[in-house]
Amino acid sequence: MDAIEVIVAKRDGGELSREQIDWVIDAYTRGEVADEQMAALNMAVLLRGMTRREVVAWTDAMLRSGTRMDFSELPRPTTDKHSTGGVGDKITLPLSPAVAACGAAVPQLSGRGLGHTGGTLDKLESIPGWRAGLSPERMRAQLLDVGAVVCAAGDDLAPADRKLYALRDVTGTVESIPLIAASIMSKKLAEGTGALVLDVKVGSGAFMKDTERARELAGTMVGIGTDHGVRTVALLTAMDTPLGLAVGNALEVAESVEVLAGGGPADVVELTVALGREMLRAAGLDGGKDPADALRDGSAMDVWRRMVAAQGGDPDAPLPTAAESHVVAAERSGVLARLDAYAVGLAAWRLGAGRARKEDAVAPGAGIVLHAKPGDPIEAGAPLMTLHTDEPARFERALAALAGGVEIGAAPADRLPLLIDRVE
Amino acid sequence: MDAIEVIVAKRDGGELSREQIDWVIDAYTRGEVADEQMAALNMAVLLRGMTRREVVAWTDAMLRSGTRMDFSELPRPTTDKHSTGGVGDKITLPLSPAVAACGAAVPQLSGRGLGHTGGTLDKLESIPGWRAGLSPERMRAQLLDVGAVVCAAGDDLAPADRKLYALRDVTGTVESIPLIAASIMSKKLAEGTGALVLDVKVGSGAFMKDTERARELAGTMVGIGTDHGVRTVALLTAMDTPLGLAVGNALEVAESVEVLAGGGPADVVELTVALGREMLRAAGLDGGKDPADALRDGSAMDVWRRMVAAQGGDPDAPLPTAAESHVVAAERSGVLARLDAYAVGLAAWRLGAGRARKEDAVAPGAGIVLHAKPGDPIEAGAPLMTLHTDEPARFERALAALAGGVEIGAAPADRLPLLIDRVE
Repeated sequence: MDAIEVIVAKRDGGELSREQIDWVIDAYTRGEVADEQMAALNMAVLLRGMTRREVVAWTDAMLRSGTRMDFSELPRPTTDKHSTGGVGDKITLPLSPAVAACGAAVPQLSGRGLGHTGGTLDKLESIPGWRAGLSPERMRAQLLDVGAVVCAAGDDLAPADRKLYALRDVTGTVESIPLIAASIMSKKLAEGTGALVLDVKVGSGAFMKDTERARELAGTMVGIGTDHGVRTVALLTAMDTPLGLAVGNALEVAESVEVLAGGGPADVVELTVALGREMLRAAGLDGGKDPADALRDGSAMDVWRRMVAAQGGDPDAPLPTAAESHVVAAERSGVLARLDAYAVGLAAWRLGAGRARKEDAVAPGAGIVLHAKPGDPIEAGAPLMTLHTDEPARFERALAALAGGVEIGAAPADRLPLLIDRVE
Repeated sequence: MDAIEVIVAKRDGGELSREQIDWVIDAYTRGEVADEQMAALNMAVLLRGMTRREVVAWTDAMLRSGTRMDFSELPRPTTDKHSTGGVGDKITLPLSPAVAACGAAVPQLSGRGLGHTGGTLDKLESIPGWRAGLSPERMRAQLLDVGAVVCAAGDDLAPADRKLYALRDVTGTVESIPLIAASIMSKKLAEGTGALVLDVKVGSGAFMKDTERARELAGTMVGIGTDHGVRTVALLTAMDTPLGLAVGNALEVAESVEVLAGGGPADVVELTVALGREMLRAAGLDGGKDPADALRDGSAMDVWRRMVAAQGGDPDAPLPTAAESHVVAAERSGVLARLDAYAVGLAAWRLGAGRARKEDAVAPGAGIVLHAKPGDPIEAGAPLMTLHTDEPARFERALAALAGGVEIGAAPADRLPLLIDRVE
């Protein structure tokens, strides 16, 4: 086989065969197909699209470039959730323990944040002592013992995806629905979960700005999961405003602990429960314990504490806080009409909560605490949000990011419902 | 500026600015923009197209990556011809001397062949002693003294195009009309000609198989030339069957000398005269001596002999011949309905007339002499063509290439006229 032949077939609008896809992914991983050839193919895929058969084969080829974990011998069914990323999206933290408390095992391999959306591992790493790296044996032991694990993916999981993602990142080929779907699903399938719920975010703070593209991504990923024998369902959920009131690593852990204690912001609780029910249903555990009960009765909190401790963390240790804070007050009275997710995410990033390059560290205490959410009435001069950072020089750039992201009006604006749609 | 921004702008269907194009071509030539980024941009250009403004700027950026020759101080106007390549296309050989004999100067930088179409330098190099390499000073002196020069392009002419073409060749991005047009025109503009006639070939033996795409390529190149202040016109001409009766390096030189002596095949003479008249008209020399007269009165032959001698060649030396020959006879009686240009070109290539890789040498005496052209009556058993090679083992592969390329029928088939259209 020959790289040019594969590129030209896709360029001219053809459907690639499974043999062509297997060959090109394998040859690229081995370095036989050059970066410039793969870049041309990615651009052709971005502009020409892929059929369901092609994207399933593409995912499968990336999956088979590394090892695939297998937890089918565990006494409990496995189920996991993946979010396409949003601002204040700490849902994994209360969700995994709640679902484990309802009888499933949750084997989540997660990532660090890049850009304006945070990463689950960054959040958990703000807990003193907590470690993201686990061997497959320790992961398996923790799943058996605690029922939930969130840890970093090893280098042997879908190495083709890692190489390909780095290439797409520098060649303007990130924004392809089939390539995004294949990238996400190759990693999720490699972690060996038997059921999967996808939280596809829609709105200014999400990768997908409009519902139609989000629905297309959801449908593509559900297709890939299903064709790989994993029960897969997707929820489309709103990301036009941050989830909850806390944005930033330790701040989000603190809010998650509130939710696990039976409190916390209504939207975080609603989404945790909705995703938890989907995870349990996909795992064949519907009709058993409900995740809302697990949050209320302390059983989710119990799993959380054991899960943190199993990875070296101290669930009772005080969380890090930032050295400086700055209160942003409302400029007028009225109703908070809009609080833009992207603006808040960018501001939190600039305060130190996120990183610009993979090598950077995040500031665990940095971020933003909201004092009002869209729809809330507000008085002129009342606190709207508090910014937290270790470096006061960052306030100015964060405030610049917020400019235009906050609107106070006479009445609440139209908003997306939190749960927009369900794709199966 | 940033490569990803430029790639994404084109990917999403935008028009690139002159600044973006200048920057990306320059940064690519310097190695700051990586091969994989340029490959993604090329694929986006191929699938999204370029406006006239963009393709003019792209050509200009490649032109300015190197030196541009200038012959404006010569006492005669300069004019040149470029063919997109065909089988048996030796037209430059009689044409340049004929046009010089009519008072213009012809500064042609030419190339070697790759694949089934021959290169003008390969043909001339079959003349004992003839050298393709000339310094700019010697080129200028020969233009002044003889009026015509055909030589190799130096490394300092449009180096961006050389780098870009090598990339397109391995990334499935050759077949883009704007990129083809920019590549050809950057080299032709760099040679400093004041007027340019493009011979855009159409048919099985040409790069462009159909008239519509050929017309689009012609229009794009004429636009680029015009916007660079070079009087540019294009002829669309037939390449469904070989030009003349000879295909192969020394064989085509011999046929060209026949044309220069006032004889030769009618189609070669017709195309030489038509292109010569266009070259003279574009140079503002219409109304003077006619190229048909220059072929008849020996003045074109005189320029030819001086042009060959000025580059070290002996115009009286016998041309090399191949060691072995094989006559292909007609299988039935009738009219030669089709003699496919690609099949004949491929067969000549396999006999040794062409090269598969840039580093390969060509066999000067190898090739094919036709004994009939489409429309000619033919008897079963009469010679149809003679194959020439130095290695008899090549006959079998050449005959395989010809299979299906020859059709003898009851009546002549419909054919393209030699001169299909003119684009200005």
